[in-house]
Amino acid sequence: MALLRPENPQQARLVRLLRDDGPRSRVELGDALGLSRSTLTAELDRLVARGLVETAGPAASRGGRRSSMLRLAGGVRFASVVVAADRVGVAVTDGELRPLAEAGAPIDVRGGPEPVIARAVELVEKLRADLGVAEFTGVGVALPGSVDGGASVAPAVLPRWQRFPVRDAFATELGCPTLVDNDANVFALGEQHVGIGRTFDDFLFLKLGPAIGCGLILGGSLHRGATRSAGDIAHLPLDEDGPVCACGEVGCLEAYCGDAGLVRAALATARSGRSAPLAARLAETGTLTVPDIAATATAGDPATQALVRDTARRLGQALVGLVSFVNPGIVVIGGAPEGLGHVLLAEIRGVVYRRSAPLATGTMPIVLSDLADRAGLVGAARLVSEHVFSAG
Amino acid sequence: MALLRPENPQQARLVRLLRDDGPRSRVELGDALGLSRSTLTAELDRLVARGLVETAGPAASRGGRRSSMLRLAGGVRFASVVVAADRVGVAVTDGELRPLAEAGAPIDVRGGPEPVIARAVELVEKLRADLGVAEFTGVGVALPGSVDGGASVAPAVLPRWQRFPVRDAFATELGCPTLVDNDANVFALGEQHVGIGRTFDDFLFLKLGPAIGCGLILGGSLHRGATRSAGDIAHLPLDEDGPVCACGEVGCLEAYCGDAGLVRAALATARSGRSAPLAARLAETGTLTVPDIAATATAGDPATQALVRDTARRLGQALVGLVSFVNPGIVVIGGAPEGLGHVLLAEIRGVVYRRSAPLATGTMPIVLSDLADRAGLVGAARLVSEHVFSAG
Repeated sequence: MALLRPENPQQARLVRLLRDDGPRSRVELGDALGLSRSTLTAELDRLVARGLVETAGPAASRGGRRSSMLRLAGGVRFASVVVAADRVGVAVTDGELRPLAEAGAPIDVRGGPEPVIARAVELVEKLRADLGVAEFTGVGVALPGSVDGGASVAPAVLPRWQRFPVRDAFATELGCPTLVDNDANVFALGEQHVGIGRTFDDFLFLKLGPAIGCGLILGGSLHRGATRSAGDIAHLPLDEDGPVCACGEVGCLEAYCGDAGLVRAALATARSGRSAPLAARLAETGTLTVPDIAATATAGDPATQALVRDTARRLGQALVGLVSFVNPGIVVIGGAPEGLGHVLLAEIRGVVYRRSAPLATGTMPIVLSDLADRAGLVGAARLVSEHVFSAG
Repeated sequence: MALLRPENPQQARLVRLLRDDGPRSRVELGDALGLSRSTLTAELDRLVARGLVETAGPAASRGGRRSSMLRLAGGVRFASVVVAADRVGVAVTDGELRPLAEAGAPIDVRGGPEPVIARAVELVEKLRADLGVAEFTGVGVALPGSVDGGASVAPAVLPRWQRFPVRDAFATELGCPTLVDNDANVFALGEQHVGIGRTFDDFLFLKLGPAIGCGLILGGSLHRGATRSAGDIAHLPLDEDGPVCACGEVGCLEAYCGDAGLVRAALATARSGRSAPLAARLAETGTLTVPDIAATATAGDPATQALVRDTARRLGQALVGLVSFVNPGIVVIGGAPEGLGHVLLAEIRGVVYRRSAPLATGTMPIVLSDLADRAGLVGAARLVSEHVFSAG
């Protein structure tokens, strides 16, 4: 039997408050939601009966009769699945979205969805057995690139996944409500729950990597837009005669700044004779990778450093327009290649602070995410919790 | 005595519903807000006592006891002031934000704020006397360019207005709550109230003219951002070696597409010998204006048409990024020069539909505003009504 969802908006607000702020006394819950004592008692009793909330002992005395503490029930367990180009990560979290256990495995997304989903399910089932979880309250799944209707619609990033029913596959295998979204949105939700985004009502999460995207938290909620494609900036045109993008157009942000764009620029640099270390690496392995680029730049090769700064400058140019437009409180950047984050950040900051309206960016920090993969695992749990913790 | 504001969120929701949807029966109001009969009666009685709501006769029978109709009281009157570069427009509206009377006068904003404000107050006072309005519930003011703290912070557009306390000046002269915002935000509010934006939760209003800006309605509300500067896209960098902008940078959107940018491009075209009609006009009057450009393009001069298309193409490029980012349901363009709207629109559509993610723009209309100045007059009233119709 799947867990019961809240019955009404008051119950939904109560479980979300316990999810976001942890155990609270009856008095604190009543104060926070502006509910009368009788309404609060009735709704909490219903939530306890539905298996969503449990008592956690007496609260610290504030004088008078002691209030009891409440928390999300131990039976609330979410599963998270984060698919990257070469790895799938999974976790099982409690109701407050704390990972109780994590696992991961190398994959190749180019092999299509079936083997990746099978591997993810296997990892999740192993964690379920280890933790003794009877059933999951929900599972959240992050995919790179655009997602529509529970499936990938990013043929360049997930070539054999196009329109494959990822949501339905996980829902069938794991027998619980399942939500799928693009990784930029999912990571933004993770940053909102446990990252620096927690203290900002409006923030922008920029996801680098094979696919480039944004997650936009506005007024405390993920902004999805009219057709649920907000943040889809991969093909923002930067230049009318730039490199050809996997989408068929030229000069797209992702064609310059996605992993494939970085590698293409590095290959050109190696072959032009401008970088001896890159050329040596290419001769040795027959190709170049993003870690090769990071290592060469970090080792001090000027041509590779220039290439990285050029990428960052283009990311900064794109950000200037976006931050002027929505005026976020902070920009958080995730997915930067290991070792390159701070070089990218310095250059991005330079462009944004120099070219944006001072009213919009005078007090706007631009930072690297300090959560790494955990943002995705927590965010995927939050994604599905938003659904199961709404009035059913 | 200023009119009393709503006392609590229920009262605020009731007056906003009557503002947006017009007269409603008690039954309809109770249904729309989910209020019990006793709560509804109590809150409506309080609103009637505060002079905000009045009875408007019996409602059509739905069987059983007849319900009475309620509407915003006849004493609710807003004043609107819209400042443009060469004209100030004013109106007085009722509680549903319908203009009851309008007036306008030529001005020159370069003469500084005092004479413009004096002229606007004079026009408003004349309408007040004509209509027999005892006092205003509030006044909303629209200024071109960025506004912060009730004052202009757009030195290039309103050169002698920098930090002049426009809000305080109107509040003192008219003796009522006053709100000041930039014209793009105000026009977006007008489009939301009586324009095509009414049916969209998420839309983008693009304001052309001397200053270029956006108003962004997200989730049914004006999105202001972390430092209230959302939509401030005037200085979005399009090109690293474009024309010098009034802000000191180069290649800004406004430097290309603002009125001054259009005129600069037309002067260059005239002087280069590429357009005989523009050169003739320049020789005749010693300068060129936006109406000159519109007339020459409309008359079929290829060089002037190319110039207009080039401007539109740059607007389209800027829009591609913005619509991918926030995924609005519709884009509404206002302030296009008389006679040029449809040429601009066709070119903007071409660029946006060709270069945006199909998921974001496949069903997204791009249209010209059909409200013209009325969007500003209604929007300014809505701006201040949002304030006075919130719980005081």
